[in-house]
Amino acid sequence: MKIAVLPGDGIGTEIVAEAVKVLQALDLSFEMETALVGGAAYEAHGHPLPEATLQLAQQADAVLFGAVGDWKYDKLDRPLRPEQAILGLRKHLGLFANFRPAICYPELVGASTLKPEVISGLDILIIRELTGDIYFGQPRGRRTAIDGHFPGADEAFDTMRYSKPEIERIAHVAFQAARKRHKKVTSVDKANVLETFQFWKDVVTEVHAQYPDVELEHMYVDNAAMQLVRAPKKFDVVVTGNMFGDILSDEASMLTGSIGMLPSASLNAKNQGLYEPSHGSAPDIAGQGVANPLATILSAAMMLRFSLNQPEAADRIETAVKAVLAQGLRTPDIHSEGTTRVGTAEMGAAVVKAL
Amino acid sequence: MKIAVLPGDGIGTEIVAEAVKVLQALDLSFEMETALVGGAAYEAHGHPLPEATLQLAQQADAVLFGAVGDWKYDKLDRPLRPEQAILGLRKHLGLFANFRPAICYPELVGASTLKPEVISGLDILIIRELTGDIYFGQPRGRRTAIDGHFPGADEAFDTMRYSKPEIERIAHVAFQAARKRHKKVTSVDKANVLETFQFWKDVVTEVHAQYPDVELEHMYVDNAAMQLVRAPKKFDVVVTGNMFGDILSDEASMLTGSIGMLPSASLNAKNQGLYEPSHGSAPDIAGQGVANPLATILSAAMMLRFSLNQPEAADRIETAVKAVLAQGLRTPDIHSEGTTRVGTAEMGAAVVKAL
Ligand SMILES: CC(C)[C@H](C(=O)O)[C@@H](O)C(=O)O
Ligand SMILES: CC(C)[C@H](C(=O)O)[C@@H](O)C(=O)O
Repeated sequence: MKIAVLPGDGIGTEIVAEAVKVLQALDLSFEMETALVGGAAYEAHGHPLPEATLQLAQQADAVLFGAVGDWKYDKLDRPLRPEQAILGLRKHLGLFANFRPAICYPELVGASTLKPEVISGLDILIIRELTGDIYFGQPRGRRTAIDGHFPGADEAFDTMRYSKPEIERIAHVAFQAARKRHKKVTSVDKANVLETFQFWKDVVTEVHAQYPDVELEHMYVDNAAMQLVRAPKKFDVVVTGNMFGDILSDEASMLTGSIGMLPSASLNAKNQGLYEPSHGSAPDIAGQGVANPLATILSAAMMLRFSLNQPEAADRIETAVKAVLAQGLRTPDIHSEGTTRVGTAEMGAAVVKAL
Repeated sequence: MKIAVLPGDGIGTEIVAEAVKVLQALDLSFEMETALVGGAAYEAHGHPLPEATLQLAQQADAVLFGAVGDWKYDKLDRPLRPEQAILGLRKHLGLFANFRPAICYPELVGASTLKPEVISGLDILIIRELTGDIYFGQPRGRRTAIDGHFPGADEAFDTMRYSKPEIERIAHVAFQAARKRHKKVTSVDKANVLETFQFWKDVVTEVHAQYPDVELEHMYVDNAAMQLVRAPKKFDVVVTGNMFGDILSDEASMLTGSIGMLPSASLNAKNQGLYEPSHGSAPDIAGQGVANPLATILSAAMMLRFSLNQPEAADRIETAVKAVLAQGLRTPDIHSEGTTRVGTAEMGAAVVKAL
């Protein structure tokens, strides 16, 4: 088994280092190979996703990813910006199914801006389609408007699109995930306005016929953005497109107040996957040894479960993370009175010890 | 001065009736004419936006709108569904600037799912572009995919687009609104992925040169969805496109916990406007006399200020609404211990009395 380790930029290198230590402590036999990605790769090789990094990722069973991006790359041409690496990996590896759990840990309920009764016990799973929609649709670009309100004016445009098999496969992923949970899927669309999402709704409804044991509800995206704030615990599995999923998964993760705890997985049809924390590269605190490595460590656990077929090892990591929280250890992002403030490396070491 | 009164469906008729009483109590001379819209118009005339209703709206200085929609119309063909009326009015009247304030009233801070310290004093204004973007872009429809992941498969598609003058005019609206407030504009985009929103960002930046006294910040839509939950009071004016604005304005209004209090205005270049509560038609409580009329009454105040040039009358209404809250009167949606529960008509009468 081979893991491609792509730490990236900002706090990426620090948090991935701790996840690697945890993986090494498991005494399983896998090969890990590290490569540059994002801004770091651009500095060294002139491209955020060099050919060698992409090949490594394609040949590996799984990619452990840190984070990419820094304000200093904002002025580069779009194809050279760090985030293109992540879009490129999704596209070339066909990582169409993004799993974004939003879980509120009992010890961290106070970190949320929401009232404890609204979020304690929260455990929702957002499944975002990741290789279709307006992210990759063609044509796109600039042109002269030929109709609309200002014919003759400069305009920019993009194409939103979903094909039937793309919707079917993500719907299957969602219904199957719900079967292992509370058997409810909320499909989020904007069928009242968009052709693409009327089709989405129709196809999800069709696929649902194969899962009579799972409840399906349809919700408009604007309402979903509201209901996540009003009563997040009413959701179990949420499935939606790439664009709406980008927005709603970030909103959902922030509800918990501890985004430094939330892992994510992006899988393709062969169960190859890219695993990364839900948070970003946080250039403002990079190099200070204060970043929370737990989201990355929990991403490594998801990797063991989904791509490396080591569910017991995944359980061990998750149990160890709960243990260090119970011990009262906290990085600054989740620190509160009465708990012990630790740095990135100390937190990683504590998880290793708890294994 | 002429007001087109379009109560619509569900609680629409009840709440608009109270707003009309408040307007009549002001002793100003305007003509009001009522017409059917939405499901009610479909039942009577076979179309949610009959020609006569559209003409009335076009000839009026302002439209006072209730709400449209009911689950029973979900199976109609899209062009006949109630919400098409609102899209049609926006399009035919050119109502490109949507104002959605999210205000947390001190008396109602407890109604929020967010902690009081996070939202008390909240006062943000979301300005959503309302006649462009993927809502109206052509082409759209179904076809056979010629490229993408599954060439040959059925697919559905839509077109996102913005022309330069469309972005310019909404940017001017936002900067001018910010001048009357805390002089800060957050422009929300997804420039890292979408051509349309890279253009949006460029044009907003260009327009900003004419407003050196206003601070401009750019934020990605996923981050904005998070920051609204994490620290909503950091925003002053938020300006964004039609699709992102739909999602973020609903998220922002739910932060306050009292969406029954929030008005909205949609204006065209001639300051004609459509005024409606931010909430929907709530068919589940229609006809029971329990709906909160305050959002509609406050929408009437916005109408007096923006389209009818009666700022003093607008102030009078807003002061009267604050007075009834201070008296402890509450409809069920905002009721809490120690306050007096009232119905729709009692609440309207109390506002009239407080004038
Ligand atoms: C960096 C950006 C392109 C990316 C996205 O929009 O998908 C990010 O926001 C994410 O959610 O992983
Ligand atoms: C009913 C629907 C078409 C509409 C929209 O998406 O604009 C509504 O959600 C709104 O925000 O007014």
